[in-house]
Amino acid sequence: MSASLADKVAVIGVGCTKFGENFGQSLQEMMVEAGTAACADAGVSLDDVQAAWLGTFSPGFSGGKATITLADSLKFRGRPITRVENYCATGTDAFRNAAAAVAAGQYDIVLVLGAEKLRDRPVRGLQREGIHPYFEAGSTAPGIFALAANRYMHTFGMKRETLAKVAVKNHANGASNPKAHFQMKITEDQVLKAPMIAYPFGLFDCCPTTDGAAAAIICRADLASKFRKDRIVVRGIGLAVMSGKPYLDPTCDYLGFPATQAAAQQAYKAAGISDPVKEVDFAEVHDCFTWTEISNYEDLGLCRKGEGPRFIEEGRSTLQGDMPVNPSGGLKSFGHPVGATGVRMIYEIVTQLRGEAGERQVKNAEIGLAHNLGGPGAVACVVILGREG
Amino acid sequence: MSASLADKVAVIGVGCTKFGENFGQSLQEMMVEAGTAACADAGVSLDDVQAAWLGTFSPGFSGGKATITLADSLKFRGRPITRVENYCATGTDAFRNAAAAVAAGQYDIVLVLGAEKLRDRPVRGLQREGIHPYFEAGSTAPGIFALAANRYMHTFGMKRETLAKVAVKNHANGASNPKAHFQMKITEDQVLKAPMIAYPFGLFDCCPTTDGAAAAIICRADLASKFRKDRIVVRGIGLAVMSGKPYLDPTCDYLGFPATQAAAQQAYKAAGISDPVKEVDFAEVHDCFTWTEISNYEDLGLCRKGEGPRFIEEGRSTLQGDMPVNPSGGLKSFGHPVGATGVRMIYEIVTQLRGEAGERQVKNAEIGLAHNLGGPGAVACVVILGREG
Repeated sequence: MSASLADKVAVIGVGCTKFGENFGQSLQEMMVEAGTAACADAGVSLDDVQAAWLGTFSPGFSGGKATITLADSLKFRGRPITRVENYCATGTDAFRNAAAAVAAGQYDIVLVLGAEKLRDRPVRGLQREGIHPYFEAGSTAPGIFALAANRYMHTFGMKRETLAKVAVKNHANGASNPKAHFQMKITEDQVLKAPMIAYPFGLFDCCPTTDGAAAAIICRADLASKFRKDRIVVRGIGLAVMSGKPYLDPTCDYLGFPATQAAAQQAYKAAGISDPVKEVDFAEVHDCFTWTEISNYEDLGLCRKGEGPRFIEEGRSTLQGDMPVNPSGGLKSFGHPVGATGVRMIYEIVTQLRGEAGERQVKNAEIGLAHNLGGPGAVACVVILGREG
Repeated sequence: MSASLADKVAVIGVGCTKFGENFGQSLQEMMVEAGTAACADAGVSLDDVQAAWLGTFSPGFSGGKATITLADSLKFRGRPITRVENYCATGTDAFRNAAAAVAAGQYDIVLVLGAEKLRDRPVRGLQREGIHPYFEAGSTAPGIFALAANRYMHTFGMKRETLAKVAVKNHANGASNPKAHFQMKITEDQVLKAPMIAYPFGLFDCCPTTDGAAAAIICRADLASKFRKDRIVVRGIGLAVMSGKPYLDPTCDYLGFPATQAAAQQAYKAAGISDPVKEVDFAEVHDCFTWTEISNYEDLGLCRKGEGPRFIEEGRSTLQGDMPVNPSGGLKSFGHPVGATGVRMIYEIVTQLRGEAGERQVKNAEIGLAHNLGGPGAVACVVILGREG
């Protein structure tokens, strides 16, 4: 299906704001910073960009209106701008739609921008949006994911100490990332003694709420050499939506996310990847909670079901391991401004593939995978990028 | 640019709910009705559909969550679903993104679904969403468009009687449309004597708030003959976003919508249309208010600036005229469930191109144009479909 996308689309520029509590920067200012950085990185002017895709989950009040906010902020007018929203997979799905338009030959050069303001939002809180008054009243992201984590612990005997290792790893990676929300190493002891949010998740098992924006300039692969010597192309993309009520579904085993499994299979098929452990060099995955990353190892096929705990305990996903996961610091440390996160992952993967990641550089990075998960585990998007030559 | 889309994508099925105050039907039920009708019309099963695009502006509370609502309602799971939101151009932009993915060869058969529940919405009102607390406090759609209409009347000497003719025409068309919200003819006198909403707009100058859903099945044009004998293809698509603050911009002349002009030019170029009056047979345009339709005549190039009033007065846009506009009844009579409207226009155009529109049938309908306008006139999308053979 999406095999036809493979190798038709190149990423020629990326940009990213510092993620964090950006009280001094509006949504509009973050859009301008990320968008112009991506253009500068690609060596193109905004006038060269023919269309844009904006990933934003909840532009709400503080951001005003979505596509016209982008048009006004970047003075990007008279051209197409589409807003894509798909829960926490918003950023990668915006990238996916932009890539399809380029692959279709509709445009030569387009902008993908993910942006979200989560910290200073008047009137409407993120968690109040889209909550069903009967089925979901009182549910929160930590509460929902904690239910699944408890089941997983019960089934496979996983301990909180194992979860803590994910937080320690991702904070260690983020500590050397100048754009990460948190740039501090933490110890397993700190994780275990932190205030409890929703058992088994303490404070350090949860990603923060963060402001940020990230952008990418993508173009027809056959034009990429005009702009850059390196050649980074889209190898495959997958998107899958499952039931929005997995936790009310008696057939749900709580032990992983079928959406991630389906999206990964689509992307692997498109990219011609049969063994991701051997063929993918590193991954940026959706570690909204420490347990989610462990589940992702399994759902992405990096190890078998139930083997995720050993994957982290043996250090395989550390920067020095055979499959570095979240070298950026992940959502846990880089932060998670919803619509921006997927595009931020593209930023990280491109930075790694170019060998420009500094202290957090993955060795021999030639193929990288980005993974978003959203909507109570119901929506997942996987993007695989590769460096050629 | 989008020329490459032309003739690569076919519409093989359409479906539409009755539009109206659908208190007895949830958003989910409307999705199921429209989606299954489109599949039945195309002669495909939902299992044959590889991906979906959902256009919904404000799924909010009553619809719950967007892409997973579609997944659960239609039991359409494990596959890609993208939500597109672009103000009142949401439906046509969802169609545009779906068409690009098909043109890219990413999928063979996909679903586009537009759905909106505007009547029974708890807690959050449509007009409260996305309103800037300083620049836009107190503004409403009738108020904003009325400002522009007043300016137009001042400049070109247009009278309320001329506006009324648009309402009379669209109600006359809608009167024979079994799916229209209002199926009643009205007189010019009724329009002029109706309660005033925002001068010059009385009640009958405004489109209603409506519930509804519409769907289309699109596929690779080279596969279309497998499913249907008629062959209806995408000839061109355009999308343009302008400033979100046209009415605060001192260079804005209030006399038309540059977004519509730009989107139309993109679509005409893609479709190879140099003279729309001669080459387009009919149009479904965004008549959110009577004046908007008059402005659309001009912005779409059906007549020159200032000549819109004469265009309606001479009856050129009636069903019997040389350029029928809104044979369906338009937003005015069919209703305007925001995200559904653009897809509903696709439904109408396909119905007309097939010669299946009954009493409201346009004669010799071979090329039809759909036009959406949204976000204080800042966003416009134009889709041109043609029947071949």
